[in-house]
Amino acid sequence: MPLREKSIIERVRSQAKRGAAVRVGIGDDCAALRIPTGHEALVTTDFSLENVHFRRQWHPPETVGHRCLTRGLSDIAAMGGRPLATFLSLALPQNLPQSWVDRFLAGLLRLADRFQMTLGGGDVAQSPAGILADIVVVGSVPKGKAILRSGARPGDPIYVTGELGGAAATLRLLFAGHKSGPKLRVADFPQHFHPEPRVAVGEFLRQKRLASAMIDISDGLSTDLAHICAESGVGAEIHAESIPFARIGKPSHEVDLQSALHGGDDYELLFTAPPGKSVPAQIAGVSITEIGRICREKQMLLIHGAARNKLLPQGWEHFKPR
Amino acid sequence: MPLREKSIIERVRSQAKRGAAVRVGIGDDCAALRIPTGHEALVTTDFSLENVHFRRQWHPPETVGHRCLTRGLSDIAAMGGRPLATFLSLALPQNLPQSWVDRFLAGLLRLADRFQMTLGGGDVAQSPAGILADIVVVGSVPKGKAILRSGARPGDPIYVTGELGGAAATLRLLFAGHKSGPKLRVADFPQHFHPEPRVAVGEFLRQKRLASAMIDISDGLSTDLAHICAESGVGAEIHAESIPFARIGKPSHEVDLQSALHGGDDYELLFTAPPGKSVPAQIAGVSITEIGRICREKQMLLIHGAARNKLLPQGWEHFKPR
Repeated sequence: MPLREKSIIERVRSQAKRGAAVRVGIGDDCAALRIPTGHEALVTTDFSLENVHFRRQWHPPETVGHRCLTRGLSDIAAMGGRPLATFLSLALPQNLPQSWVDRFLAGLLRLADRFQMTLGGGDVAQSPAGILADIVVVGSVPKGKAILRSGARPGDPIYVTGELGGAAATLRLLFAGHKSGPKLRVADFPQHFHPEPRVAVGEFLRQKRLASAMIDISDGLSTDLAHICAESGVGAEIHAESIPFARIGKPSHEVDLQSALHGGDDYELLFTAPPGKSVPAQIAGVSITEIGRICREKQMLLIHGAARNKLLPQGWEHFKPR
Repeated sequence: MPLREKSIIERVRSQAKRGAAVRVGIGDDCAALRIPTGHEALVTTDFSLENVHFRRQWHPPETVGHRCLTRGLSDIAAMGGRPLATFLSLALPQNLPQSWVDRFLAGLLRLADRFQMTLGGGDVAQSPAGILADIVVVGSVPKGKAILRSGARPGDPIYVTGELGGAAATLRLLFAGHKSGPKLRVADFPQHFHPEPRVAVGEFLRQKRLASAMIDISDGLSTDLAHICAESGVGAEIHAESIPFARIGKPSHEVDLQSALHGGDDYELLFTAPPGKSVPAQIAGVSITEIGRICREKQMLLIHGAARNKLLPQGWEHFKPR
């Protein structure tokens, strides 16, 4: 094994804390995880590829690490699960400075620590082109209690957590500035650079049996709502005036409707509740907003004042490859 | 989501059989897996990157899919575990023919079927350069019974399954022929193109409590033995005359000592047994060969006739990036 790869494994091994769930971790052929009795294991994998999901000149390495793990944590949240351990496959170009790797791992491990998760293993390789990361998150949920995409029924109100469109509107600013513009201050655009996986909200909804279906908004509201509709065999009506728009920048401004409707990478939760359930206005410090209703007819409508227009899935805007 | 990615997900979803372990599969935020009662979950991830782990002009797509999954299955075998489900993250260049993807998936799913494993999910993305695959395999093993790298003790005999060096010696032929040479017939070089993960052998050794430590030979005998020695805090003596050399090609010839000692990608198992345990000469149709002994002094020696030379870890030969 080349020295570079060896040193990364040793670095991760020394930095990674051993969580209760990981009985055998880095340094063996597999990790061995304890899944709590009466629980199922949840598994999700997500790529973070340079020039597809991030750009080195736009994203400080810590934010790349944070966003990489957020993608997986958000999937666990969307099932109502609890994260247990993460695994990282990382391929690096030969000329990448060691400091980039260190800062990337620092951002990733800081977020993992907040959820008492261990980095349980992974793979390291030399990349033929660009930085390539694939994150796996393993979590758990009581048997048969995961909140699926397929449980929405006509009449169920539709909710979202937090505010929408902040990540995509920031991405648009990054594109507009491209190489010439000034760098955006990371702290002024947390929705894009430090999205917060809604793990506590997802778990609360599952424990209180409040949600009939759930998904995380990683591909944009319109696209992720379409997934719920497809898996549940239903349609939906969304009220444009009800959508909680994110505010970004300093001084802050509200994002546009297109970003809120179709923008990806928000990592908020989109869920439905059986009618009559009392859904709190805030859960774990995160605002919950009703934005529409599930209906029988298999189409999505956007209601804007008196206008009723078809809402088509137009999300999932990643960077185009060079 | 671009059409190309969507069609791949739908294709996999329709082809993937639902195994007993996967309660929720492709089509939700996470897969939900049933881990058998009293068992731990095993997790392993492995990259298969174009021009690092395979080359399109050398490896038919079916063999790339087969080798990709073998990497993960072999890690499960090395813990004495049983595979349950696999997850595939796949990033593809825009100009890749659909037939390549179909044939890759066919090779991967054929091997998965043999182990009654479901493809439980994954991720699909556009690749900035080359085909990028990351395979995750989740398995299970009775609690506390996984065979670790750290259990070898002085006096334990050292065994390997099958024959060594076939994959690396074939790789050398591929390099020698490079672009000009004739293609190698896949059927004549199964060790390289269709390595067999030793799942049944690993499980037998665990059930019969025959192994004190185990690893799979993915990085080469010298390097993987060094891992066992490091994790167990011991050394080892290997008898060169005892090493079972692979035979490759048609008519077949025996590989050289260097390939057998340091060649990667064999996916045979390397294990130690407590002294006095009776290890069969064959397990699940695979020959088992004693090749040396664990010793107290923390170094590796190669004994060749009367000569005793230091054995250094020199394995892990992947392709150099372009």
